[in-house]
Amino acid sequence: MGQFPVPTEITRSPIELGGRPAVLVRPATDPHPGTILYFHGGSFSLGSPETAMALTARLVQQTSVPAVSLDYRLAPEHPFPAGIDDCLAAYRELLDHGADPSSIVLAGDSAGGGLAVTTTLAARDQGLPLPAGIVAFSPGLDHTRSGASMSTRRDADPLFTIEGMRRTGDLYLAGQDPHQPLLAPAVLADLTGFPPILLQVGTNELLLDDSVRLADRARDAGVDVILDVVADVPHVFPAFTGVLDEADEAVERAALFITQRLRRPVRLG
Amino acid sequence: MGQFPVPTEITRSPIELGGRPAVLVRPATDPHPGTILYFHGGSFSLGSPETAMALTARLVQQTSVPAVSLDYRLAPEHPFPAGIDDCLAAYRELLDHGADPSSIVLAGDSAGGGLAVTTTLAARDQGLPLPAGIVAFSPGLDHTRSGASMSTRRDADPLFTIEGMRRTGDLYLAGQDPHQPLLAPAVLADLTGFPPILLQVGTNELLLDDSVRLADRARDAGVDVILDVVADVPHVFPAFTGVLDEADEAVERAALFITQRLRRPVRLG
Repeated sequence: MGQFPVPTEITRSPIELGGRPAVLVRPATDPHPGTILYFHGGSFSLGSPETAMALTARLVQQTSVPAVSLDYRLAPEHPFPAGIDDCLAAYRELLDHGADPSSIVLAGDSAGGGLAVTTTLAARDQGLPLPAGIVAFSPGLDHTRSGASMSTRRDADPLFTIEGMRRTGDLYLAGQDPHQPLLAPAVLADLTGFPPILLQVGTNELLLDDSVRLADRARDAGVDVILDVVADVPHVFPAFTGVLDEADEAVERAALFITQRLRRPVRLG
Repeated sequence: MGQFPVPTEITRSPIELGGRPAVLVRPATDPHPGTILYFHGGSFSLGSPETAMALTARLVQQTSVPAVSLDYRLAPEHPFPAGIDDCLAAYRELLDHGADPSSIVLAGDSAGGGLAVTTTLAARDQGLPLPAGIVAFSPGLDHTRSGASMSTRRDADPLFTIEGMRRTGDLYLAGQDPHQPLLAPAVLADLTGFPPILLQVGTNELLLDDSVRLADRARDAGVDVILDVVADVPHVFPAFTGVLDEADEAVERAALFITQRLRRPVRLG
């Protein structure tokens, strides 16, 4: 996704968060309160804050909320759970620096969308207060690859093959059993207590049912969840802003979701 | 829902559409192009445009798009398919008067949410061009009452009981078999070619799985669908604007959806 143009009005600065490099993305206008903690995609073994910058910057531009995009450790050098550890450390440092958890939204695309969910799981399991919301674009939420769409969308997905996903998945697993909540949250995670979740995914994706099943689990756990599915669009289609109308509209909806999530604490404060 | 305050800035005028009384609801400001054709709730046997006016007016206020709320015929005097016939006649008259179908969004709550879906089905089956979008608040989409939530939410739903729903449903069915697409679209309808759909529903509703299953069918038919589920809120919770934060936020999301649906033809025109 590094090929999409980044809005020129936003500013980017290198920072460090939770012991990892990160990029602080600030809006051109007076920033609104809050932080979008962003996790890029790349199958847990590729990518960087820069490869997801077009989408991250668009969210910043549309919400006026600053983002911090984390350069978490990647497989195969750093398999599961290194990435989650880094994301959790970053979230924890925001809290340690005095951020109200209700002023933080976790967001991410593909593997990073999975990290937004699993970081929240890990935070809850360690007794940390949870963020105000989760935004996940075409998230990967099941390393057991048991979703129906893995077969029903096998010929429809223009980007992924099951074999390719297994190969990169194996780098992240490094022999570990995928049947655990942090590796298959769509199948195994108890989402009780989670903040509202927005999932955006395309109908033709192998990963479609990762989102469908996470939404099922969220509803069953009494969690607000918006399952926003768009037909015939590519993986992480919101990244195609300025190219696809569907992308512009999806980012607009994601921006409204983030704004709504961050509005309540502002009202209370 | 007649108890909710109607925004005073909007104006209401009685009109006739498709041979039925209706209420034209206009925004205080210059109206944006398009029409929201609204169908009120009331289990197909109760209610009127006025009982749903708070929600209808809020949509008009937030989108600046005028609405026409139809006083369709009710059971038991006029069982299935009288209500659908009236809604379809109203839609057809809008088209006959020169409205571009891409400038019309069908919306409704409860039984009226069901009518927004079944009117679109009936329009497609009669070869009419379809509207730009469908918004359904806690829609009833299955007179076979086969959704899992009919039992899983039996003790959670604060408003409905299965017995009560069966009683009012029987008035509408009048002995007809509910196993047909226009009476159970969540179970039996082929949604191919449908415009984008927004479904908003609460986690505790007997009707939850009507929306869940319609969303499943929409995805399988390659239709854009947003399944927007909010925890622990009452039936047709977006009507509680000014009372529940969840309602204000849901209406804001519905208004964005309507705006996005009506934006493209304006761009093209």
